[in-house]
Amino acid sequence: MSDLARIAESLKQCRTILISAHKSPDGDALGSQLALMLALEKLNKTVTAHNLDPVPEIYRFLPHAGRIKTGLLVQGRYDAYVVVDADPPRSGLFDKTYPADILINIDHHLTNPREWPLTWLDPDASACGEMIYELINEFGVTIDRDIALCLYTAIFTDTGSFRYSNTSPESMKIAAAMLEFGADPWLVTENVYESFAYQRLKLLGAVLAGMERSEDGRVAWVVVTDELFRRTGTTAEDTDSFINFVRSVKGVEVAVLFRQTGEAQYKLSLRSKGRIDLSGLAQSFGGGGHKNAAGGTMGGTLEEVKRKVISGVGEAITAQLGAGGADPDGRRR
Amino acid sequence: MSDLARIAESLKQCRTILISAHKSPDGDALGSQLALMLALEKLNKTVTAHNLDPVPEIYRFLPHAGRIKTGLLVQGRYDAYVVVDADPPRSGLFDKTYPADILINIDHHLTNPREWPLTWLDPDASACGEMIYELINEFGVTIDRDIALCLYTAIFTDTGSFRYSNTSPESMKIAAAMLEFGADPWLVTENVYESFAYQRLKLLGAVLAGMERSEDGRVAWVVVTDELFRRTGTTAEDTDSFINFVRSVKGVEVAVLFRQTGEAQYKLSLRSKGRIDLSGLAQSFGGGGHKNAAGGTMGGTLEEVKRKVISGVGEAITAQLGAGGADPDGRRR
Repeated sequence: MSDLARIAESLKQCRTILISAHKSPDGDALGSQLALMLALEKLNKTVTAHNLDPVPEIYRFLPHAGRIKTGLLVQGRYDAYVVVDADPPRSGLFDKTYPADILINIDHHLTNPREWPLTWLDPDASACGEMIYELINEFGVTIDRDIALCLYTAIFTDTGSFRYSNTSPESMKIAAAMLEFGADPWLVTENVYESFAYQRLKLLGAVLAGMERSEDGRVAWVVVTDELFRRTGTTAEDTDSFINFVRSVKGVEVAVLFRQTGEAQYKLSLRSKGRIDLSGLAQSFGGGGHKNAAGGTMGGTLEEVKRKVISGVGEAITAQLGAGGADPDGRRR
Repeated sequence: MSDLARIAESLKQCRTILISAHKSPDGDALGSQLALMLALEKLNKTVTAHNLDPVPEIYRFLPHAGRIKTGLLVQGRYDAYVVVDADPPRSGLFDKTYPADILINIDHHLTNPREWPLTWLDPDASACGEMIYELINEFGVTIDRDIALCLYTAIFTDTGSFRYSNTSPESMKIAAAMLEFGADPWLVTENVYESFAYQRLKLLGAVLAGMERSEDGRVAWVVVTDELFRRTGTTAEDTDSFINFVRSVKGVEVAVLFRQTGEAQYKLSLRSKGRIDLSGLAQSFGGGGHKNAAGGTMGGTLEEVKRKVISGVGEAITAQLGAGGADPDGRRR
């Protein structure tokens, strides 16, 4: 019996079910959680959705998002507890004791340690939402517009609107089916990608205007200082995903964002376009990460920190790709 | 017999075929053109691809893009001339006399006047690439990786990477099939969306840093001056799609970009998020456009032009949506 079938069977036999997603929930976490909740309710289960962190504003359009409880205090006892899109500790809600008889984990992250017996892990799924789609089909529940919108959002966001390399024929086929069940693609786009806070976009402008790059154009970086936050009335959270703009520069292999976190302390974020492996580099900067994304924190003046990081990244690029040229732009030849 | 079947029949009987796309070709135009060329070559046709304008750098990764001839001078005579993704005048190459016996037009733009007898128009297609996919199936030609990459790019770009409201179940199903035939989604993303010229991104930064908006937050605007072009070493072309960032601001209904085109002259671009119809407004600014996009050119100092346009847009919003509030940001309450 497959993990999927075992989980479907277990859930069918429960009456009360608690579902959590991970801390700082994203579109896949929330879409998966809500779709599963709605499908289980169609099977007449009593379902509670509870996360540590609130639903970010851009995902409040999701049907029934307002029903997700938040905070550390989880009340009641349940027949089953389901964690979606993360290994259970990442829900941040419980420390080894759970208010349920059956524990179920549904995730697509390869790093999941499979610590619960009823774990279904599918690293080939672009989004946990794809797995929830399969589970709902296994239940035999008919997908309605609300469920379709949740699952579409899950797949849409985890594939970067079908831009990332995890976009598979399967993701697109399920997304097509969700559109047929009534999901509105522009509704999702408008909420997820067309709801940039005004001050945040002005901050992005100021940050990008100050972008610099190495002579060979393979490293580009931006700096966000305390002064800039003060001037634009923004906070660290507003810099989310800024580094993706830097990475998008033609010729750039590694993008770096330096964010001031103290008088002489900076948080680093690094992103690779895919050819440079950052996992070794992050450790040398006192941080962690994986192939395409790494981060850390470093003390020193901005000039010191920049010098160390940029030369370190430059060396890693030379080691992995060979030396670069001195004319990064075809356009300026 | 359907237009599709008639066109497939006609092409099968030809030996030499010329294919053009429209001026300033985009991903759909080029992907459709190249996919059709490659499919016809599998039927042993001799195919020439010829456009007025060169292939933009971001689309040069398309298989056989280097074979597209460019410029006004078209040599030779052909059994058939096919114009894709536009009505024939928009190819910009011929004025009523064509170097072919049979004229074929394949397009998905509702505005196409259907002036050629062999016209196939499908306004429900999200991209012309979807129609070319159907045509290739009608030919019975097997889709290979190169054709798949062209058609995937066509659909991917015309739906804004599946973000726009024209994204249909059909678009996603065809895209899924193209991935199965070997199209690499990240290759397309990296070329189309991750190849921002360095100076262009710095220009975007400077432009966004200067963004302003109306008191109710429903109109936001940016200005690109000659001085800014000089300072960043950029040109008008580099501002392409900048207005989409302005439109993406939460609460904004209409985004405006003012681009200096003379000492006291400005080109306007307007974009609506979908609720405001801009078609009437554009005419009052001496320009043209449709529901969601409009443009024009206006003489006067920057302050004069801004005042006229912003108050005109504000009035249109009030007329269509009613009065707005004075607190555009939930976040700053």
